[in-house]
Amino acid sequence: MILLSKEEIEKLIDPNEMMDQIEEAYRLYGENQFFMPPRPVIEHDNKSLIYMPCYTDEVIGTKILTIFPENSKLGLPSIDGVILLNNAVTGAPEALLDGQSVTAWRTGAVGGVGIRHLSRKDCHTVGVIGAGVQGFHLALYACAARDIHTVYIYNHSDRDLTDFIARLEKAIDNPNTKVVWCKKTEELVKHSDIICTATPSAVPVLPNDKELLRGKCIIAIGSYTPEMREIPDAIWDLTDKVYIELPYACEEAGDLSQPIAEGRLKKEQAVLMSDFLKSDADEDQIAAGTTYFKSVGMALFDICVAQKLLAKSKEKQQ
Amino acid sequence: MILLSKEEIEKLIDPNEMMDQIEEAYRLYGENQFFMPPRPVIEHDNKSLIYMPCYTDEVIGTKILTIFPENSKLGLPSIDGVILLNNAVTGAPEALLDGQSVTAWRTGAVGGVGIRHLSRKDCHTVGVIGAGVQGFHLALYACAARDIHTVYIYNHSDRDLTDFIARLEKAIDNPNTKVVWCKKTEELVKHSDIICTATPSAVPVLPNDKELLRGKCIIAIGSYTPEMREIPDAIWDLTDKVYIELPYACEEAGDLSQPIAEGRLKKEQAVLMSDFLKSDADEDQIAAGTTYFKSVGMALFDICVAQKLLAKSKEKQQ
Repeated sequence: MILLSKEEIEKLIDPNEMMDQIEEAYRLYGENQFFMPPRPVIEHDNKSLIYMPCYTDEVIGTKILTIFPENSKLGLPSIDGVILLNNAVTGAPEALLDGQSVTAWRTGAVGGVGIRHLSRKDCHTVGVIGAGVQGFHLALYACAARDIHTVYIYNHSDRDLTDFIARLEKAIDNPNTKVVWCKKTEELVKHSDIICTATPSAVPVLPNDKELLRGKCIIAIGSYTPEMREIPDAIWDLTDKVYIELPYACEEAGDLSQPIAEGRLKKEQAVLMSDFLKSDADEDQIAAGTTYFKSVGMALFDICVAQKLLAKSKEKQQ
Repeated sequence: MILLSKEEIEKLIDPNEMMDQIEEAYRLYGENQFFMPPRPVIEHDNKSLIYMPCYTDEVIGTKILTIFPENSKLGLPSIDGVILLNNAVTGAPEALLDGQSVTAWRTGAVGGVGIRHLSRKDCHTVGVIGAGVQGFHLALYACAARDIHTVYIYNHSDRDLTDFIARLEKAIDNPNTKVVWCKKTEELVKHSDIICTATPSAVPVLPNDKELLRGKCIIAIGSYTPEMREIPDAIWDLTDKVYIELPYACEEAGDLSQPIAEGRLKKEQAVLMSDFLKSDADEDQIAAGTTYFKSVGMALFDICVAQKLLAKSKEKQQ
C-alpha cells in the first residue's frame, strides 16, 4: 500500500500531465470504457459518508467523502476525504491518496482542459471569482494552459487576499505573471480573456451584461446543486452551447437546471466534452466567440488522476 | 493519516486486549450506541466492492472489501480489503488498516470471547476444523482464553499441514502447548473440549453424533451464506440455545437458516451475545453443558478493533 499525502501529491503534480490525464478520462468516457454506478450515501446524525466508485480497465477506485456541515463551527472544511485505488485485476488495495488534494488538482485540471480547447490561444489574462482552494488551482492551470501575464482575483467577502495572492504568485512561479486583486466583478470581467468561477453562490456572480461577457471563455466550477448559480442569463444571448462532462450536470447544477426549467436552455444545447474532443470541430473558430464550460466533476476524473499520481510515485521510487 | 500494514498490526496485537475490545463492541451493540446501515454493494464484471460502514460515538469506519472470485485461478484469495477510520467529530480520515489482517484478528477474537464465556474454565484442549487463516487465529485466541495444552487440527483436503502446524506452534509461543494433526474429525471431536469450525463447507463438518458432541463448546465461524453448513442437526438434541451476534445471522448463516426452515430451530432460541454478556446468567453452569456460538461477524467489530489498534499505534509512537 502506498499512502500519498497532500505534500507528496504536490511534489508529483505537473499541470500539463494532469490535463493530459483528464483528456484520457474524457477518452474513456467517450468510448464507454468505464463503470461509474450511482454513489451510495450514508447519512447519520448530520454526518454523511459518500462512496464514489469507478472502474476502468486499468484501475478500480473509490473516492470516499465525509460531509460534516457542523465543521464550519470549528473553522474546518465540511468536506474531507480520501481516494482508495484497487488493482483492476485482483482487487488488492494499492494506494490511498489525500482526497482534498486530488479533488483540488483534478478540478483545476478539468478547468484547464476547458481553457485548452475553448479559449483563444492568445489569451493572456484570466479572472478568478472565488479566492478558495478551487480558485487557487484554477488560476495555476490557466497559467499552464495559456501564456497568462495577469491573474485577476475577486472574492465576495471582505477577507484580505494579500496572503492568498502571495501564495498564488509563488505557486505560479513565473516572474512575468502578476496577480491583481479586483474589488468589483465588472472590473475583473472587463480585463479578463478567461473567467473562472469557483464559488458556492446561490445567485449569479458575473454581471448580467452581455456586452461585458462577449468573447470571453467562461469556466464555471461552482454550482454543484440545483440551488446554486454562478452564471447570469446574459450568457444565452452570446452562445447557444454549453460544454459539460456528463448529462447529469443538467440536473445537478443550478447553472443549467434553472435555465432549462425556465425554457432559456434546451438540454440538446449541452455538448459533452468527450464528444467535442473527439470531433473535428474548429477549436480556433469556436474560441473566437463566447464559450462556456460548466463542470460538476465525476469520480472517473478522481480515479484517473489518482492513478496517474500513483504511477508517478512508483516511477520516482525506482 | 496512519497506515497499518499486516506486519504492523501483528506487532500491536495482544489477544486478551482484542477480546476485551470485542466485549466493548458487544456493550455498544447492547446499548444501541452504534449505527450500522445496510452495506452498499457494487457489482461489475464479477468484481464486487462492498462498503461496510459503522458509526460509534468515538469513531466512524468503513470496511471496504473487494470480492474477485476469479482470483482463485491466480492462486490469490478472492476477498481483500482495507478498514478506513474517520474522526467521529470532524470526519477527517485518520487511518487505513490492512483488511485481511484486521478481519483475521477480530474474527479470532470474536471466537475467543465465545470461548471465554461459553466453555468450562478447565478446558485444556481445542480442536480446529479448517486449517486456514481463520482457523489459525481461532487456535491462538483459544490458547489466550483458556490454558490449552493441545490444539487438534483437521483439514478436509490432503494438504500437508506440517508448515501450518509449525507456524501455529511458533505463534502460540508456549512450549507446553502441542499442535496435533487429526486425520479424522471423529478423533478431533473426541479429544477436544472446545471445537472451532472455520470452513466454507456446504455440508456439516462435525459428525452427526450427539454422544460425541455432548458437553463440548462449539464455536462456528464458517457458514456465512444460507447455502453453507458446518454444524450437524445432532446439536439440537444437546442444547436449546445458540448464541449469536445479531439477529441477521438467522438469515445469513445456513447453520441457522436451514434448521429454522426445517422447523428444528426457532428464532427465539437464538440468544444475542450482547444480552447474554450483560445478564447475570451463571456462565459456569451453562458451560458445563453443550454450548454453541455461531458467528457471522459485523462491521462494528472491525471498526472497534481497528480503533483499538490505531490507539495502540499512537501510544507506541509517543
